[in-house]
Amino acid sequence: MSQHTPPDRQLHLNAFLAATGHHEASWRHPATRPERGLDIKYYQELTQTAERGLLDSVFLADGYAGKYGKLEPFTMLSALAVVTKHIGLIATVGTTYNEPFHVARKFASLDHISGGRAGWNIVTGAGSAAFNFGREAHPEHSVRYEYAEEFVEVVKQLWDSWEDDALVYDKANGVQIAQDKVHEIHFQGETYQVKGPLNIPRPPQGYPVLVQAGSSETGRELAAKTAEVIFTAQQTLGEARAFYRDVKSRLAKYGRSPQELQILPGLSPILADTESEARDIERELIELANPENSVRGLSNWLGFDLSPYPIDGPLPYADLPGEENINGHKARYTLMVELARRENLTIRQLTHRIAGARGHLTFTGTPLQLADLIEEWFLTGGSDGFNVMPQLYPTGLNTFVDKVIPELQNRGLFRTAYEGATLRDRLGLARPANTRHRPVLHS
Amino acid sequence: MSQHTPPDRQLHLNAFLAATGHHEASWRHPATRPERGLDIKYYQELTQTAERGLLDSVFLADGYAGKYGKLEPFTMLSALAVVTKHIGLIATVGTTYNEPFHVARKFASLDHISGGRAGWNIVTGAGSAAFNFGREAHPEHSVRYEYAEEFVEVVKQLWDSWEDDALVYDKANGVQIAQDKVHEIHFQGETYQVKGPLNIPRPPQGYPVLVQAGSSETGRELAAKTAEVIFTAQQTLGEARAFYRDVKSRLAKYGRSPQELQILPGLSPILADTESEARDIERELIELANPENSVRGLSNWLGFDLSPYPIDGPLPYADLPGEENINGHKARYTLMVELARRENLTIRQLTHRIAGARGHLTFTGTPLQLADLIEEWFLTGGSDGFNVMPQLYPTGLNTFVDKVIPELQNRGLFRTAYEGATLRDRLGLARPANTRHRPVLHS
Repeated sequence: MSQHTPPDRQLHLNAFLAATGHHEASWRHPATRPERGLDIKYYQELTQTAERGLLDSVFLADGYAGKYGKLEPFTMLSALAVVTKHIGLIATVGTTYNEPFHVARKFASLDHISGGRAGWNIVTGAGSAAFNFGREAHPEHSVRYEYAEEFVEVVKQLWDSWEDDALVYDKANGVQIAQDKVHEIHFQGETYQVKGPLNIPRPPQGYPVLVQAGSSETGRELAAKTAEVIFTAQQTLGEARAFYRDVKSRLAKYGRSPQELQILPGLSPILADTESEARDIERELIELANPENSVRGLSNWLGFDLSPYPIDGPLPYADLPGEENINGHKARYTLMVELARRENLTIRQLTHRIAGARGHLTFTGTPLQLADLIEEWFLTGGSDGFNVMPQLYPTGLNTFVDKVIPELQNRGLFRTAYEGATLRDRLGLARPANTRHRPVLHS
Repeated sequence: MSQHTPPDRQLHLNAFLAATGHHEASWRHPATRPERGLDIKYYQELTQTAERGLLDSVFLADGYAGKYGKLEPFTMLSALAVVTKHIGLIATVGTTYNEPFHVARKFASLDHISGGRAGWNIVTGAGSAAFNFGREAHPEHSVRYEYAEEFVEVVKQLWDSWEDDALVYDKANGVQIAQDKVHEIHFQGETYQVKGPLNIPRPPQGYPVLVQAGSSETGRELAAKTAEVIFTAQQTLGEARAFYRDVKSRLAKYGRSPQELQILPGLSPILADTESEARDIERELIELANPENSVRGLSNWLGFDLSPYPIDGPLPYADLPGEENINGHKARYTLMVELARRENLTIRQLTHRIAGARGHLTFTGTPLQLADLIEEWFLTGGSDGFNVMPQLYPTGLNTFVDKVIPELQNRGLFRTAYEGATLRDRLGLARPANTRHRPVLHS
C-alpha cells in the first residue's frame, strides 16, 4: 500500500515510557527487568534509545494514589533531560490536587534545564487521590474540568509574568533583572487567587507544549481550546478518522488552525521478525496474566464490579453504569464496552484485548506490517502520528527504533535528523507570544 | 594552633550553592557569570567540584515568592544527582504551602534517583508566599511550626508506608509487590488528613537526611526533636559554642545522643593567596553593592524600614520591633541587631558586614588562615563542620576545594576518600528503622 510519496505533513512519534512495558503481565516476561523499575539509568537508556530513533518525545503517565512504586515525573524527566539533547520530555501533572504556582515553576525549571523540551500532559486526576490530600471526595468530572481550565490559565499567566527580555545581566550599570519587565499577575479566579510573579524566568518555549489526554466530549472541547497534542485511544481506523475530523473541526471556533493540535492515538505493538514469533510473544503474555487481577482491572475501568459474573460469559450490558455515570475516563469506558459488543467478546476475551494497553490499539506482527499500519492511519486522516506503547520494554522499543523507524524513513514518512532546538520546533508548533497585556476578567 | 592530632569526630562540610556567590554584589564581579544562572551545566560543574573536594553535600535555599529567577530545587538536584556519585543533595522545601504527599514522594524519588543522597531542609517559608497560594496572610511563626511538625510526621509515615522488603519481583509466582507490606496510614491530624500509602517505595536512606535552619527558640527545639543537621548563623566562636552546647543539650530529652544532630554554621569566605589580595576582592565587592538596595535588604531582615534614617548613623534601636514581633528568621534579626550594637556599626557598616552572607560568619584571607578558623571552631566546641558559602562562585569554591581541603586533610581533620554509599553514611547518621507499627495518636 505504500506509494512512497512524501506527505506535506510531518509524522510525530512519542514513546510512552513504562518500566517493563504496557502489557499488564510484561513484568513477568523473561525479556523484562522489573527490578530496574526505580533505576534512573534504565530510563536514561530507554530515552537515549528513543532519541537514537529521532522520536519527538517521551512521555510519563502519573497519578497520586495506588501502590505502583514509580519514580516521580519531574525528578525523573530532569534526570533524562541531562543525558539527551533533542528529545521532548512530557510529564503528566494533575490539576485537582496541585497548586498552579508550583506546577508553573516546575515546568519552567524543566524547560530551562532541557533547553526547551518540556511538555505538560494536563489531567484532572483519579478519585482515589482525594484521600491523600485531605479531601472528602473527588470532585465531579465537569467540575474538575472547570478547575483545570482556570488552573491552566493561571499557569500561563505565571509563565508570562516575566517578559522574554527581563534578564539583563548588565554588570556595568548594576541591573541584573529589569524590574519593570517582571509583573505581578493578581489572578482572581473562582478557585485560584495568585499574585505572582513566578520566581523563574519565562520558559525557553514560552509555554511547554500543552498535551491533553481526555477524549470525552469535555476533553475534546478543552483540547480544541487549549491543547497542542492530544493522546487518545482509538480501536479502529474508522473511529480514529471520525475522532480526528471531529477534534480538528472544533479548532476554528477558537481561532486555531488544524495543525496547531497534533492527534496521537496510542499504538501498542508486539514486534518480531515473523508474524508467528510475534503471536508467540502475545500468547506468552496472556498466559502470564492473572485472570482475577485482569477482571479487577477491567472492573476499575468500567466503574463496575465484574467479579460476580461468569468470566467466560458476556459483559452484563444491562447492568453497566453508562458513560454519563463515569467520573473520569469516560471515553475509555465507552471504547471498552463498544469493543466487547462489536466483537462479541466474553469478559475473559475482553481482558485479553485490553491487557496490552488498557484499550489503546494493539498490534502484533512484523516491523514492516507496523509501518504499513502507521502509514495508512497517517495518510488517510486517522492521526498525525502515534503515542507508541511497546508491550515489552526495553525490547519493544529497541525493535521499533531499529526496524520500524528506518522503514518509515525509507518511505519518506519520518525525519532523518532532528531539526530545530525545542519540542515545539519538532511538533511544528509556534512559540506563544507573551500575553501579559491581555485583560484578565474573572468573575 | 594546629596540634595535628586526628579528632575522634568527623568534620562535615556542605557547599551552599548560589549562582554567582553569596555576596549580594557577586553577580557584578568580573569573576562571575550571572548569565549562567539558569544553566544546569553550570551547577553540575559546581557540584562536581564539591565532589572532587569530598564535601558531604551541596545545598539549595528556596522560597515561593520574589523576582529572583532560579531553577526549582527538585528538578535541579535530580539533574545534579545523575552526574555525581557520592555527594549529598539537600533541597529546601517549605511546609506551609505544600502537600505532605507531594513532598514525601518527590524526596523519595530524589533519594532513589541519587542512590540515597537526598536531604530535606525543612523550612516554614516567608510571608510573601501566601499570596501565591490563595491565602490571605502568612500564618504566625508558632502556628507555622505546629503545621511543620505535623507535616514532617505525615511525611515520615508515608515514607514508612512501604516496608523495606515490599518489592518482591517474583516472576515465577506472579508477585511483584507484596501487597501486605504496603500500608495505608490513615493519618488524621489537626491540619493534614492523608490516607496513603505513598506511591513509591521507601527511600534507600529510610528517610532522607532531615535538616533544619531555624535558630530561634522554637527552631532549636524542633531541631533537637527531629533534625539531623542544623544550619545556623553564628558571628563569633563564643556565640557558636553557646548555641552548640544549648542545642546538643536538648537532644537527651528526646532520647537522642549528641552525634545524632550535626551543627553546621554558615561560613562565607573570600579567599586569595595573600591576605591583601583577599581584602582587595572584599573592597571590590563592597564598591559594587548598591547602598539603597543594601538598606532595603537589611530592612527586610529587620522587618523595619530603615530608609528614612541616615545611612551613616546608628541603627534606631529604640524604634526596632524586637525579636518577639518578627514573623520569621527571628534568630537572624537578633544576630544582626546584636552585631551592630557590639561593634558600634552605622547602618552602612552593618550592610557591609552582612553583604557577604546575610549575617553568616564571613572570612577574608588565605586558605591557611581559613583552615585555622575551621580547626579552631571544630575542635573547641563551636561546630561539627560548616555550611560553606563562597562569596564568589565558581572561583571561591574552586579555591576552597583546591587549597583549603588539602590543608584540612593534612591536619587529619577531613576525609581523604568517600566512605559508605549514602548521605547518612557520610554524616554518621543511622538509617531509621521503619516505624509503621508505632501507634498514631493525634487529637
